[in-house]
Amino acid sequence: MIKVGIVGGTGYTGVELLRLLAAHPSVELSVITSRAEAGIAVADIFPNLRGHINLAFTAPDSAALAACDLVFFATPNGIAMTQARELLAAGVRVIDLAADFRLKNVDTWQHWYTMPHACPELLPEAVYGLPEVNRAAIRTARLVANPGCYPTAVQLGFLPLIEQGVVDIKHLIANAVSGISGAGRKAEVAALFSERAENFRAYGVPGHRHLPEIMQGLTQATGHNVGLTFVPHYLPVVRGIHATLYGIVTDKQLDLQGIYEKRYADEPFVDVLPAGAYPEIRSVKGANTCRLAVHRPQGGDTVVVLSVIDNLVKGAAGQAVQNMNIMFNLDETAGLGAIALLP
Amino acid sequence: MIKVGIVGGTGYTGVELLRLLAAHPSVELSVITSRAEAGIAVADIFPNLRGHINLAFTAPDSAALAACDLVFFATPNGIAMTQARELLAAGVRVIDLAADFRLKNVDTWQHWYTMPHACPELLPEAVYGLPEVNRAAIRTARLVANPGCYPTAVQLGFLPLIEQGVVDIKHLIANAVSGISGAGRKAEVAALFSERAENFRAYGVPGHRHLPEIMQGLTQATGHNVGLTFVPHYLPVVRGIHATLYGIVTDKQLDLQGIYEKRYADEPFVDVLPAGAYPEIRSVKGANTCRLAVHRPQGGDTVVVLSVIDNLVKGAAGQAVQNMNIMFNLDETAGLGAIALLP
Amino acid sequence: MIKVGIVGGTGYTGVELLRLLAAHPSVELSVITSRAEAGIAVADIFPNLRGHINLAFTAPDSAALAACDLVFFATPNGIAMTQARELLAAGVRVIDLAADFRLKNVDTWQHWYTMPHACPELLPEAVYGLPEVNRAAIRTARLVANPGCYPTAVQLGFLPLIEQGVVDIKHLIANAVSGISGAGRKAEVAALFSERAENFRAYGVPGHRHLPEIMQGLTQATGHNVGLTFVPHYLPVVRGIHATLYGIVTDKQLDLQGIYEKRYADEPFVDVLPAGAYPEIRSVKGANTCRLAVHRPQGGDTVVVLSVIDNLVKGAAGQAVQNMNIMFNLDETAGLGAIALLP
Amino acid sequence: MIKVGIVGGTGYTGVELLRLLAAHPSVELSVITSRAEAGIAVADIFPNLRGHINLAFTAPDSAALAACDLVFFATPNGIAMTQARELLAAGVRVIDLAADFRLKNVDTWQHWYTMPHACPELLPEAVYGLPEVNRAAIRTARLVANPGCYPTAVQLGFLPLIEQGVVDIKHLIANAVSGISGAGRKAEVAALFSERAENFRAYGVPGHRHLPEIMQGLTQATGHNVGLTFVPHYLPVVRGIHATLYGIVTDKQLDLQGIYEKRYADEPFVDVLPAGAYPEIRSVKGANTCRLAVHRPQGGDTVVVLSVIDNLVKGAAGQAVQNMNIMFNLDETAGLGAIALLP
Repeated sequence: MIKVGIVGGTGYTGVELLRLLAAHPSVELSVITSRAEAGIAVADIFPNLRGHINLAFTAPDSAALAACDLVFFATPNGIAMTQARELLAAGVRVIDLAADFRLKNVDTWQHWYTMPHACPELLPEAVYGLPEVNRAAIRTARLVANPGCYPTAVQLGFLPLIEQGVVDIKHLIANAVSGISGAGRKAEVAALFSERAENFRAYGVPGHRHLPEIMQGLTQATGHNVGLTFVPHYLPVVRGIHATLYGIVTDKQLDLQGIYEKRYADEPFVDVLPAGAYPEIRSVKGANTCRLAVHRPQGGDTVVVLSVIDNLVKGAAGQAVQNMNIMFNLDETAGLGAIALLP
Repeated sequence: MIKVGIVGGTGYTGVELLRLLAAHPSVELSVITSRAEAGIAVADIFPNLRGHINLAFTAPDSAALAACDLVFFATPNGIAMTQARELLAAGVRVIDLAADFRLKNVDTWQHWYTMPHACPELLPEAVYGLPEVNRAAIRTARLVANPGCYPTAVQLGFLPLIEQGVVDIKHLIANAVSGISGAGRKAEVAALFSERAENFRAYGVPGHRHLPEIMQGLTQATGHNVGLTFVPHYLPVVRGIHATLYGIVTDKQLDLQGIYEKRYADEPFVDVLPAGAYPEIRSVKGANTCRLAVHRPQGGDTVVVLSVIDNLVKGAAGQAVQNMNIMFNLDETAGLGAIALLP
Repeated sequence: MIKVGIVGGTGYTGVELLRLLAAHPSVELSVITSRAEAGIAVADIFPNLRGHINLAFTAPDSAALAACDLVFFATPNGIAMTQARELLAAGVRVIDLAADFRLKNVDTWQHWYTMPHACPELLPEAVYGLPEVNRAAIRTARLVANPGCYPTAVQLGFLPLIEQGVVDIKHLIANAVSGISGAGRKAEVAALFSERAENFRAYGVPGHRHLPEIMQGLTQATGHNVGLTFVPHYLPVVRGIHATLYGIVTDKQLDLQGIYEKRYADEPFVDVLPAGAYPEIRSVKGANTCRLAVHRPQGGDTVVVLSVIDNLVKGAAGQAVQNMNIMFNLDETAGLGAIALLP
Repeated sequence: MIKVGIVGGTGYTGVELLRLLAAHPSVELSVITSRAEAGIAVADIFPNLRGHINLAFTAPDSAALAACDLVFFATPNGIAMTQARELLAAGVRVIDLAADFRLKNVDTWQHWYTMPHACPELLPEAVYGLPEVNRAAIRTARLVANPGCYPTAVQLGFLPLIEQGVVDIKHLIANAVSGISGAGRKAEVAALFSERAENFRAYGVPGHRHLPEIMQGLTQATGHNVGLTFVPHYLPVVRGIHATLYGIVTDKQLDLQGIYEKRYADEPFVDVLPAGAYPEIRSVKGANTCRLAVHRPQGGDTVVVLSVIDNLVKGAAGQAVQNMNIMFNLDETAGLGAIALLP
């Protein structure tokens, strides 16, 4: 059994991680910390876990964490970078579900996250935890930076085109919508039910923090700088990301469907739908799956890729468990077999 | 034109009051105060008001308010009671949309609102602003306590039975559900979209603040103490209250439908549906109407009354405007003619 | 492995049954019939099942069904009663998720379901599949009538009080709300998104088909006729039932909390919350759990019981799998361990 | 008073038209026809209209319609084209809210609407009722083709750029989302609450019927054929369209904000938001307003325009009333002053 600790865990990625780990056959959940909720039973805050998790939150405790095989950080940005060094030194492996180790360039990171990075020396070592790109590196990584939710949906959607060099990389467009759980479990007027229900709007058009993360991934795949316009929107659902991706293809004779099917033929968590299909977000609710479809409307030069994930699963906690499975040589799908809830 | 001021106005009852007053033919909106938003244009916070209201929020200012004919308090509980005395002394009439003047008994008020009452001497004078009960008193009132949302729906539903003395007043049950806007525009985890969407639960079973208000109204109508079990629930919609009321009738031969139709025959904002009908909350969305239906299932001794309002209109801002119309001898329906939005 | 067939399966209880059976360790799904969708892959209609179920719908086929150990009917009312006799004769055990065998009195059934019963001779043998009441009989049953969704939530909520004889059984009230998936996957204007979203209303007040089912269960528990007022409402969520139950207790000194905890101490799928708690429907979304809480507001004589289930799981497909587990001497929780999705 | 008739009127655009006309100061609603609902009071089907509209639906009746000044068709596609000729001959003016007269090219129409056009000779005369483009022609038109919902939002968003010739018209992208009321009040599984709630997907990528309508309008504005990729999506709200439009600008020094403000400076129903703003759909709920914002992220060559309308108002019934006002020389804003409901 892998001895696992969680730092944070009172947010939505935290409870999702708990849901997945509670059902995982090879995990012993040994400690979960929360300064604010220390002493409170996890199931008192998240009643879906009653009967499944008997742990209580504890105050942050280095010794307890250092005794783990793996520690997940389900914390706000800026926490993992202050504790990772010590844990690694103690031989503990780390998966950060926040953004601290996602960008390789420390200046870029500091620009977008508007704080000094506490631990830049670990950036070169950190492995970006998108298994469909970095599986081999993840296997031996000490420190994994779990990808953001939008970046997961957008990269998995664009990668086959980028890798094959068949689109104009200067004019990529990612129009994406996210369920409100992506805003986290923080008391904010903007995320109130009465602000988001029966409503829809864009945000972050001048620049969302996930933009540099996506651009880093796409640039790495092509070897050249990409030009990407990324427009996220608030979608009035709890879970789900849908990305509608647009690119201009360089050759109208391409077998786009074939390119996608081949690229993901061996991926357990990427499902390329038949030509003409439309992935819907409920088809992945609670599941670690990314479903994709590729269209070229009216036989023109614009390709449209549709990509859906559950932002809390493949976009956060599920991908983190997938990374854990890879790091510890478990079956990559262990604990991740749940079928999406539909309807 | 009536010169109107609003204290508060950054919450949901505030914006609704602004929406109604902006379209009112006899109102000049002269000042709206908010300490937090002073200097900000109202339409910057509530974009639906762009082109309709050019005012900006101002810091609280006694002189500006004292120059009004009428001041609405759309503030949290505990504010109006500290300012009402001074405004009344200046000849300004006051409608409080919060709870400060709703209960006649100061001890009861202090028990439920857990603070000392700053102005108990005004309680005897304050008129409870339910026009269907107190129209005459409202006309001449200096100070009107606008009813709570649940109390409006529940009292209008029960009153015909209570006034006729045809139910067991010791075992009344009010099962009610409210849209989330009833929780206000405050940053609270409990009111987040991701906490309330696709969810439903009861709350306040041991005692909600609207319980004593409802009991005061029903007791006054019957002259005896009533026994009421009131169970509110969070409904995952923005607007709307639906109360399902249960009572045991003392006589199975009663013409319940006739009692209701007669009671509200002259009321412009209470609509008794035909026998067998089911009022739905969307039929009053944005409108100042209470729709009622009365049933006696299987011809038994239990009567079931269904009552719906828009919590922000007949349950708050609309009723306040109705009270204003009465106080200033305007047509009671002035500015309140909007038809509910359906679908 | 138990060889299982499903008749119907294109509705919401059908896809939920498929989701649960696909993950069940002891089930071999051998045939699923649908006249309308014959030849279509199950996963083409329900994309969440892609990669989990490779079966296609087939035209109804007696031989294939007769070769099963167990056949589930996930059909509209009136189908199972025409096919059960033949299957039982072939040695196949049957669980009907519809209402054909729920009522013992054939006249009552014909009154509420407005059709002649095709197979009244099986009614005495059919076992009402509420494991918390009939576990022993279910174990050996050939034919199980899976309970309705409202009846499951209401009976589990009332039973401890009824069995202990501590409430006035003449004036029970069940105020219940149901997610729209309870209306099924039929093309009807009344169940359109635009009719139900941001809306709420009661229905069936004069008499819902689940009323006689609940009354049969409660009457059997107490040995006397009960008087029940049951008011269902449409709740704008996909999944979930919340029942708010009211009764008048005969003794105010009772330890209600203790009565509930004791009654369900050994039940794997009934969770009695601590005193003062409020079960919420999302805490059981996708799970086979009924969560209950009991309150006695203001120390009065009215008890309020709150009961939640997922209408598609403990209210339909999950309970059917639980019944199957009991009938085939499997672990009662096999295949039913999923934790509810929250948020 | 203008004597108005409505053909159809049991759908969502119909009830919205009734809501607006009931409050219009210069309209006498004289007849509303529906074959299916003949004899039923309008308010029995749409309870929000109780007390506002006393009319009943009548069977289609040429004489009654011929006695009107104006007839609105709120019918499915293919109805108005069979009746318009006769009405025009009788001196009645016609506004068709469906698509029968939107496209100038009859072959294109027949291709997209897959039926023969019953009345091609009226196509040249029909005026496309987008007042911001065709106000003068609308004033004298006998026959107005009211624009589709998506085409209204998309054209108003793109027109300033197109008219100024400052974008690459070969690679326009319109990514749009629509509330479910856009699918109409028809019994269809795909529009059920349980299919659309907590869900999101694209549709119509190979070609939606609104594509040729948009292209016709944009082509007319620029004088050249445009290349447009249009991807609509189902948004789980009742009302609202949000279009996110992308174009490549030919000059990065352009004052885009100025171009938009100038273009719509005199338009009563188009509101250009300040630079950096995000229009939200709830800001136009129930109102005849289109709100726009223009962005150029990271100072690049891609312009992003955000455009919102209420699909039932500016996207249908409200725009029809605006056209009526223009046709009959009324104040263009008459009956259209309602402020959007927020929250």
